[in-house]
Amino acid sequence: MQTVNAYAAPAAGEPLAPTTIERRDVGPNDVLIDIKYAGICHSDIHTVQGDWGPQQYPLVPGHEIVGLVAEVGSAVTTHRVGDRVGVGCMVNSCGECTHCRRGEEQYCTQGNVGTYGAVDRDGTITQGGYSTAVVVDAGFVLRVPEALDFASAAPLLCAGITTYSPLRHWNVGPGSRVAVVGMGGLGHMGIQLAHAMGAEVTVLSQTLSKQEDGKRFGADHYFATSDPETFTRRASSFDLILNTVSAEIDLNAYLSLLDVDGTLVNVGAPAAPLPVAVFSLIPQRRSFAGSAVGGIRETQEMLDFCAEHSIAPATELIGADGINDAYERVLASKVRYRFVIDTSTLG
Amino acid sequence: MQTVNAYAAPAAGEPLAPTTIERRDVGPNDVLIDIKYAGICHSDIHTVQGDWGPQQYPLVPGHEIVGLVAEVGSAVTTHRVGDRVGVGCMVNSCGECTHCRRGEEQYCTQGNVGTYGAVDRDGTITQGGYSTAVVVDAGFVLRVPEALDFASAAPLLCAGITTYSPLRHWNVGPGSRVAVVGMGGLGHMGIQLAHAMGAEVTVLSQTLSKQEDGKRFGADHYFATSDPETFTRRASSFDLILNTVSAEIDLNAYLSLLDVDGTLVNVGAPAAPLPVAVFSLIPQRRSFAGSAVGGIRETQEMLDFCAEHSIAPATELIGADGINDAYERVLASKVRYRFVIDTSTLG
Repeated sequence: MQTVNAYAAPAAGEPLAPTTIERRDVGPNDVLIDIKYAGICHSDIHTVQGDWGPQQYPLVPGHEIVGLVAEVGSAVTTHRVGDRVGVGCMVNSCGECTHCRRGEEQYCTQGNVGTYGAVDRDGTITQGGYSTAVVVDAGFVLRVPEALDFASAAPLLCAGITTYSPLRHWNVGPGSRVAVVGMGGLGHMGIQLAHAMGAEVTVLSQTLSKQEDGKRFGADHYFATSDPETFTRRASSFDLILNTVSAEIDLNAYLSLLDVDGTLVNVGAPAAPLPVAVFSLIPQRRSFAGSAVGGIRETQEMLDFCAEHSIAPATELIGADGINDAYERVLASKVRYRFVIDTSTLG
Repeated sequence: MQTVNAYAAPAAGEPLAPTTIERRDVGPNDVLIDIKYAGICHSDIHTVQGDWGPQQYPLVPGHEIVGLVAEVGSAVTTHRVGDRVGVGCMVNSCGECTHCRRGEEQYCTQGNVGTYGAVDRDGTITQGGYSTAVVVDAGFVLRVPEALDFASAAPLLCAGITTYSPLRHWNVGPGSRVAVVGMGGLGHMGIQLAHAMGAEVTVLSQTLSKQEDGKRFGADHYFATSDPETFTRRASSFDLILNTVSAEIDLNAYLSLLDVDGTLVNVGAPAAPLPVAVFSLIPQRRSFAGSAVGGIRETQEMLDFCAEHSIAPATELIGADGINDAYERVLASKVRYRFVIDTSTLG
C-alpha cells in the first residue's frame, strides 16, 4: 500500500478538498501510474453530487487520466516503466463474458468496474484520477501515442471514446450526414472525429455563439436550435444524430431531423425520462439509441486515430485549487471545452 | 367510372353503413380487382374514428384486400384476368425517390398513397377494401400464391408485412432471441413468422389466457407481463422485441429485457408519447425503433414465405352486417385473431 495525495468530495454537494488515499500494492498484473494530468468530466460532477445514486464518501473522481508508468507487476508484458499511458472510465471487468471476450468490456455482463466510486474486485471502493498515482490492471491501461500532447490527451479517455465509439458503431464514414447536438466537451470531440472519418458534419447548438469554434473543429454546417426554422429546414436530413447534451431536450423535434433508417444516439444522460412519440419513429423506421464509452481495444484505436489525424480536445489547464471553480463553470456551460488538472499541484 | 357497393363511416365516431362509391376507369397501368375478402385492421378503427387526425367522410376503410383480377390496362404485363391478387396499405408512391427505387415505397420521400383516406395522385380521396371492387396501379398489386387460403390471406397484406418487415430488417434468424409483445392480430403473425425464420420466440402477453394458442403458433416461451417476475427473470435476454400493442406500456420495463445491442421495435402505435429513460438505453447500447409495413417487393416475398411455410392468420369470417360488432370486439381485444369480411355480402 502507498499513500498518495488526492482531491476528494467529502460528502454529496460539498466542495472538493485535499486529502490522501491509499493505493494497493502492485500485483503481478498491475501497473503503477504516476498521474500527470486528469480531465474533468461532467459525469464527475453528477457522481459526486449524488445525481446518479448514492455514493460512498470521501470520493475522488476523475476518469480521464494520463501519466507515466512507475512500476509494473511481474506478469505485465504490455507496458514498461516510463511509458506514456492512460486510464479511462473502467479499471476492470470479468474478462470472461461474451462482451468482455469481444473487447467490449463496457458492456460486461457482470458489470465493469468504474474508475471511481465502484466496488473493485477486491471489495474496496475505487478512487479516481484527481490524485498523484493509481494502480490499475494492465489490461485497462492504454498507450498514449507520442504524437499526442500529453495534457490534452487526458479527455480523450472519456470524451474521446464516448463519441468515437457510436460514430464507429453506426458506421460513420464518407457520405454520412452526422449532426452533433451540443458544443461542449463531448460535442467538440464528436465534431472532430466525425469530420476525420469523412462525414458531412452539422452542429446543432442552442445559439450560434460557438459557431466559429465549430467550423474550426471541422463542422460543415452550424445551426441554432433556438431558431424553429432549423427544424423545418433540416427535416429528414441526417443519418446519425449524436446527442451529447444532458439537459432534457424535445427529443421528437430532433428525431424529425433523421432520414429513413436514421438513428439518434444519446451519450448525454439526462436524469428524467424523455417522452418519445412512436409516430416520430414508425413512418421512417428511425431509432433512438444510447451508447456507453467504448471497449479497451476501441479506446486504443481511438487514441491512435487521434494521433494520426492530429485530433485533440481544446483544454484549459488548471491547478488543484481551481477544481471547485471549474465545476461551477462546467455546470454553467462556461468551459471551452475541457478542464484538465495538472496533478503536480495536488501537493 | 363504375359504381361499386361498399361499407363506409359516414362521419367520425358513427357506425359504418352500406353505401356506393365510384371507382376510376382502368388506365393503361391499372388493374381492376373484384374484391373477395377484406381484413379488419385495428388501424381501420383508429382512422375512421379520427384518432390519427381528421378525415374526409364518408370513408371506406380496408387495406387487407384479396380478390381476382377482372380487367388490366393496356400496359400491364404483370397480372392477368383471373389472377389471385392482393392489395395492402399503399396504392401508389412517387416511384422516383431513393426509397421507392430501393423498393421501400412505404418510406417514399413524397409520401406514399394510402389505400384509403389519402389524396391519390389524381387528387381524389382513396377508398379502401370494404367494397366489391377497386382499381389499383399494377405496381402495387401483389400475387397471392395458390397455396394460401384466399380468405385468410387477406390479413397478410397488413398484419403479415408489418411484422415480417422488422423481423427481416433486424436480421432475425436461427439463434435470434425474439420477444413478441401482444397476442393480437399483429402478434400472432409475428410469432409464426419469427418461428419460421428460426428464432427462439417468447410471447409477452398481459395474462396467460392465450398461452395455448401462442405455443401452437410456434412460441417457445410464454410469460405474463402482469407478473413482475417476468421482468426480473427475463432481464437482458432478448435481441429483438417486437411490440405490437397500441396501448401505452411501461417502455423502460420492456427495454430492460433487451440484451446488449438489442432493439425494441414498435409496430403498435399508441397516440401518446412514451417516456424513455436514457439510462434504459446507454448502459447496454439498446435501441428503441419503429417500423412501418413493408415495401411491395418485400410484401411479395412475405406472401411467398407464408405459402412456403404454411403460415396463415387465424381468422373469423364475417358478413357486412357484422362489421360494427367486429369493431367493438377488436377494441375489446376479443378477436382471435383477425376478422375478415366476405365482400360478397356487401350487396
